[in-house]
Amino acid sequence: MSKKVAIIMGSDSDFPIVIPAIKRLKGFGIPFEVKVMSAHRTPDMAADFAKAAKDGGFDVIIAAAGKAAHLGGVLAAHTTLPVIGIPIKSSALEGIDALLSVVQMPPGIPVATVAIDGADNAAILAAQILALSDESIAEKLEKMKAEMVDGVIKKNEALQARIEEI
Amino acid sequence: MSKKVAIIMGSDSDFPIVIPAIKRLKGFGIPFEVKVMSAHRTPDMAADFAKAAKDGGFDVIIAAAGKAAHLGGVLAAHTTLPVIGIPIKSSALEGIDALLSVVQMPPGIPVATVAIDGADNAAILAAQILALSDESIAEKLEKMKAEMVDGVIKKNEALQARIEEI
Amino acid sequence: MSKKVAIIMGSDSDFPIVIPAIKRLKGFGIPFEVKVMSAHRTPDMAADFAKAAKDGGFDVIIAAAGKAAHLGGVLAAHTTLPVIGIPIKSSALEGIDALLSVVQMPPGIPVATVAIDGADNAAILAAQILALSDESIAEKLEKMKAEMVDGVIKKNEALQARIEEI
Amino acid sequence: MSKKVAIIMGSDSDFPIVIPAIKRLKGFGIPFEVKVMSAHRTPDMAADFAKAAKDGGFDVIIAAAGKAAHLGGVLAAHTTLPVIGIPIKSSALEGIDALLSVVQMPPGIPVATVAIDGADNAAILAAQILALSDESIAEKLEKMKAEMVDGVIKKNEALQARIEEI
Amino acid sequence: MSKKVAIIMGSDSDFPIVIPAIKRLKGFGIPFEVKVMSAHRTPDMAADFAKAAKDGGFDVIIAAAGKAAHLGGVLAAHTTLPVIGIPIKSSALEGIDALLSVVQMPPGIPVATVAIDGADNAAILAAQILALSDESIAEKLEKMKAEMVDGVIKKNEALQARIEEI
Amino acid sequence: MSKKVAIIMGSDSDFPIVIPAIKRLKGFGIPFEVKVMSAHRTPDMAADFAKAAKDGGFDVIIAAAGKAAHLGGVLAAHTTLPVIGIPIKSSALEGIDALLSVVQMPPGIPVATVAIDGADNAAILAAQILALSDESIAEKLEKMKAEMVDGVIKKNEALQARIEEI
Amino acid sequence: MSKKVAIIMGSDSDFPIVIPAIKRLKGFGIPFEVKVMSAHRTPDMAADFAKAAKDGGFDVIIAAAGKAAHLGGVLAAHTTLPVIGIPIKSSALEGIDALLSVVQMPPGIPVATVAIDGADNAAILAAQILALSDESIAEKLEKMKAEMVDGVIKKNEALQARIEEI
Amino acid sequence: MSKKVAIIMGSDSDFPIVIPAIKRLKGFGIPFEVKVMSAHRTPDMAADFAKAAKDGGFDVIIAAAGKAAHLGGVLAAHTTLPVIGIPIKSSALEGIDALLSVVQMPPGIPVATVAIDGADNAAILAAQILALSDESIAEKLEKMKAEMVDGVIKKNEALQARIEEI
Repeated sequence: MSKKVAIIMGSDSDFPIVIPAIKRLKGFGIPFEVKVMSAHRTPDMAADFAKAAKDGGFDVIIAAAGKAAHLGGVLAAHTTLPVIGIPIKSSALEGIDALLSVVQMPPGIPVATVAIDGADNAAILAAQILALSDESIAEKLEKMKAEMVDGVIKKNEALQARIEEI
Repeated sequence: MSKKVAIIMGSDSDFPIVIPAIKRLKGFGIPFEVKVMSAHRTPDMAADFAKAAKDGGFDVIIAAAGKAAHLGGVLAAHTTLPVIGIPIKSSALEGIDALLSVVQMPPGIPVATVAIDGADNAAILAAQILALSDESIAEKLEKMKAEMVDGVIKKNEALQARIEEI
Repeated sequence: MSKKVAIIMGSDSDFPIVIPAIKRLKGFGIPFEVKVMSAHRTPDMAADFAKAAKDGGFDVIIAAAGKAAHLGGVLAAHTTLPVIGIPIKSSALEGIDALLSVVQMPPGIPVATVAIDGADNAAILAAQILALSDESIAEKLEKMKAEMVDGVIKKNEALQARIEEI
Repeated sequence: MSKKVAIIMGSDSDFPIVIPAIKRLKGFGIPFEVKVMSAHRTPDMAADFAKAAKDGGFDVIIAAAGKAAHLGGVLAAHTTLPVIGIPIKSSALEGIDALLSVVQMPPGIPVATVAIDGADNAAILAAQILALSDESIAEKLEKMKAEMVDGVIKKNEALQARIEEI
Repeated sequence: MSKKVAIIMGSDSDFPIVIPAIKRLKGFGIPFEVKVMSAHRTPDMAADFAKAAKDGGFDVIIAAAGKAAHLGGVLAAHTTLPVIGIPIKSSALEGIDALLSVVQMPPGIPVATVAIDGADNAAILAAQILALSDESIAEKLEKMKAEMVDGVIKKNEALQARIEEI
Repeated sequence: MSKKVAIIMGSDSDFPIVIPAIKRLKGFGIPFEVKVMSAHRTPDMAADFAKAAKDGGFDVIIAAAGKAAHLGGVLAAHTTLPVIGIPIKSSALEGIDALLSVVQMPPGIPVATVAIDGADNAAILAAQILALSDESIAEKLEKMKAEMVDGVIKKNEALQARIEEI
Repeated sequence: MSKKVAIIMGSDSDFPIVIPAIKRLKGFGIPFEVKVMSAHRTPDMAADFAKAAKDGGFDVIIAAAGKAAHLGGVLAAHTTLPVIGIPIKSSALEGIDALLSVVQMPPGIPVATVAIDGADNAAILAAQILALSDESIAEKLEKMKAEMVDGVIKKNEALQARIEEI
Repeated sequence: MSKKVAIIMGSDSDFPIVIPAIKRLKGFGIPFEVKVMSAHRTPDMAADFAKAAKDGGFDVIIAAAGKAAHLGGVLAAHTTLPVIGIPIKSSALEGIDALLSVVQMPPGIPVATVAIDGADNAAILAAQILALSDESIAEKLEKMKAEMVDGVIKKNEALQARIEEI
């Protein structure tokens, strides 16, 4: 059975930040759904989604939210699926409010937190989790790692010319 | 009909911090109930409580929690009653995590935040809210203010002797 | 008797930040007055206003100020009405100075603090307080909550098309 | 085939903080190994371990470290297994240095970060990941969640007596 | 005419922190008065004191307060005398709340801020201000500076023996 | 004898921030000199200036610097004149580095710190200090305070029209 | 034998920040190489480089990286050469994450940290180290210091005209 | 000619923190001198020392100071020798004030900053610098690195028994 990832945003204004996660999951060929769902404006919707997520075929939930970012914690409260939290930087405090709201969860209810605005890494972490029982995803992750090395090598070469110009 | 305040703690380890709120409400003769209820460990209990709070005779909810303190936000999501949040200082980060998790709520769902470990002020704020339609509480608040002035005057006198000794 | 809210700004440069509170109160049909009054430049005006606020028909005071934001505390010192504080982000420190100056009040004098630049929530909190003795405001709050749910549902639908394009 | 978790500490002084993770994994009956391995003092040992972890039968790596906590990032650099990072609070800065060093990973190499000193949650997160392909662990997680609810209910009852005494 | 310094504390619990200022002023032979006066609990007392301070023979006001430390700002609002602010470290946030509340004053109303718990420096700063029109104080400041140099030289000598023992 | 204020900047890039201080001193008719002098690039120049400042006719020194802002401390080390420090916000850290470098002086050597980029207040504080022995400056300070009140009153009137438009 | 400095960047997006270091080394006539090398994306490349750096003729390594900036620590783990770390400010948190990740190294593996985005100082520090055994570099450093003094003197003169215009 | 390191403390109260540096240099057989010298209380002594340090046979200066820790910057202003700064944690702010005061130096005058209270690393960094022209120190550094590996291996073995007991 194919594995599925849920990407939940606290607000549609978070959408541009979340796009790298969508691209990454598409690139890996991992099925996913994207939804706007607020821990505060639509708490029942969020609770219902989280309670039904496992039976609905989801394996991993990614939650992106800013400010007092409770979305990941609220979803994690209602499921035993792993929940990945993306703290979103908003107009004040540089995202430290979201980071602390997401990562400082009390014992019993973890949220696997990635960097502020770290949507790409949230998707890669989801893929790493799914890869534990899906070798094809594991291979794609290995390939991604190899391509990162190639990318650095190429950037290195390109850089040498720019150094001459200084 | 008598007004009632709910004091909800995220963990019973928060109890010592919450005691000044209990004492203050007792001193004002304001009925209250105290409960442990976790946004993360007992999310349904918290949601059910908040949804039923108004009909259950509560006028104000005080929520005390530490770390990624979502309790106030979760309760506020399910009620239109005013929710007062007390950020609790825990073993790391000096309570700034709780403060930001409580106060930085997104538009639509306010939590009236008091100082870190500021339980006494949470109770006074609840009393100020109730006093709007209960003149006897307003009088007690006025009396408290007058006593604070007297207290400062007495401390001032007591202080002068200590200054001589330096 | 109709309830009235005071919105006090520390400086007229805070006006753009305060507008969402004005719009929200207008939307709820709650009477309000808006004034510029500085804890530092016009301390007597602020004290006199706060002392007279209750008799002047105000039920709730909203105080918006930036930097070492003492306005809420100064007003609260002179009244037993609930005072809601909006910390305003100014050019340095991302608003953390204002947040701490507003929220960290000592025992005896609470200021109900909302998020940095959180004017909309300040007005909603004021409405929640007034709704305790005015069922028509309570209904408007319920309606607002329902509209927020509808808003999220619609944004969800709109989002699906954008996801296809990625 | 049984799943295995690695718990890697940057220093044996981190051991007391890590104990809750060990207890939790034991309680879940999940096999694990615990090692001291420093990103800085034994970088080759850390790299070799991470490279061989997957073939060595590990599914998840938990990395606990303080200060400029690079351990999780260094392990994650050498494996496609999910790496969970526990920032450890040390003598200065209340653990914020470790938190930022663990969570703020650049795109490509995620570390699933839990709260400062959040060892219990690291183990629960590991269990959630393993539960995706092991229903018996999923059942234990469900049971843990149910017990947390029972625990809160019992604490609530015990609390009522203490409130009377105030 | 002799110059006089006022030392105002927000709470008598700040007294131990303020003692070095008292000792320093005594050492310099500068007349002073010490009072407890709260910007929040006794705002009128604070305002009245500040308004009358100049005519009452005070030249400099030192204000010590913790948390949302408005005392210095409130006093400065009511006088044109220089006001020196001492932010006091309290149980949470390590005094950063007090520091920002004291120092981040808006244009028009300065508070001359010294370090967190920096009472000794507040007194020295007051002396420096008074010394501008009192050469005898200036001489004492010069002597203090010379003694500091001597103190360092002696500590240096004492230190050499301790180094041998390591 | 006329009193003189020195305004020292750590870099000429700080000049735009310092302009309000210059304007304020000009407005008060207080003589001043402005110099660029770095604690790090020209330490001897700074030390020599501070040592000679009192005999050179200066009464107050204002020091404006950013980042690890040692200028105020270095000047204060070499004089018994009051030194006022303006922390300058630079490209990173929002000025908190400069603020802490200026304000957290050790016992013995105070720097009277104003807000980040608070040049206007530095000048007003200097005027308050000079006014202790120059009643004409005291009158200008009183007038400034009165004008601030008038300014707020006028802004209040102007504001009412803008509120109608919302 | 000529001394050589390595400038290693975690990403080619750090290049503009690093340019002042390149210019400074060129100005001093110190040979250098610039490479992109990631602690996370190319950990083996980084380890291999550091292990071989001493034999490859390098005396000092400069490492520039942002966010959870492990590059300096990873290089230092594999060499006994002095490693200078430049924390790079990225889109969130103003560079404090990078600063703490670079500077808070555990005992045994130092990274000589300069200011956020402080590339010029990294190069000067490298030159100071090399100058210990190369008097010609020492002379260039002395000359640079003298030019800084001249620069300040000239800026001072230029400034006086601008002050007149205010 | 033997190389010599200067360890300068801002206060003799910093001595306990500095001891690991002394032990490390003794262990390496590197000559050193330890002095108390304050940037603020003895600025001329500090300037004179730094100006004469190179001719006095010093190759590296280690400066340890707390709060607004200007010592490293002041010494660096007067010498072209590499200056290593140790920020000392004092009673408030957890050492972040000292860290920023030491590390955020402006262009032209670097201070090579190590971790808060990181005296051991300061000495190791000094040794790394001296090792560039003294192969015997380089060998000791290699040996130290090897011993760190052995230490971790032994701690690993010791740890396994403790894990059984949990």
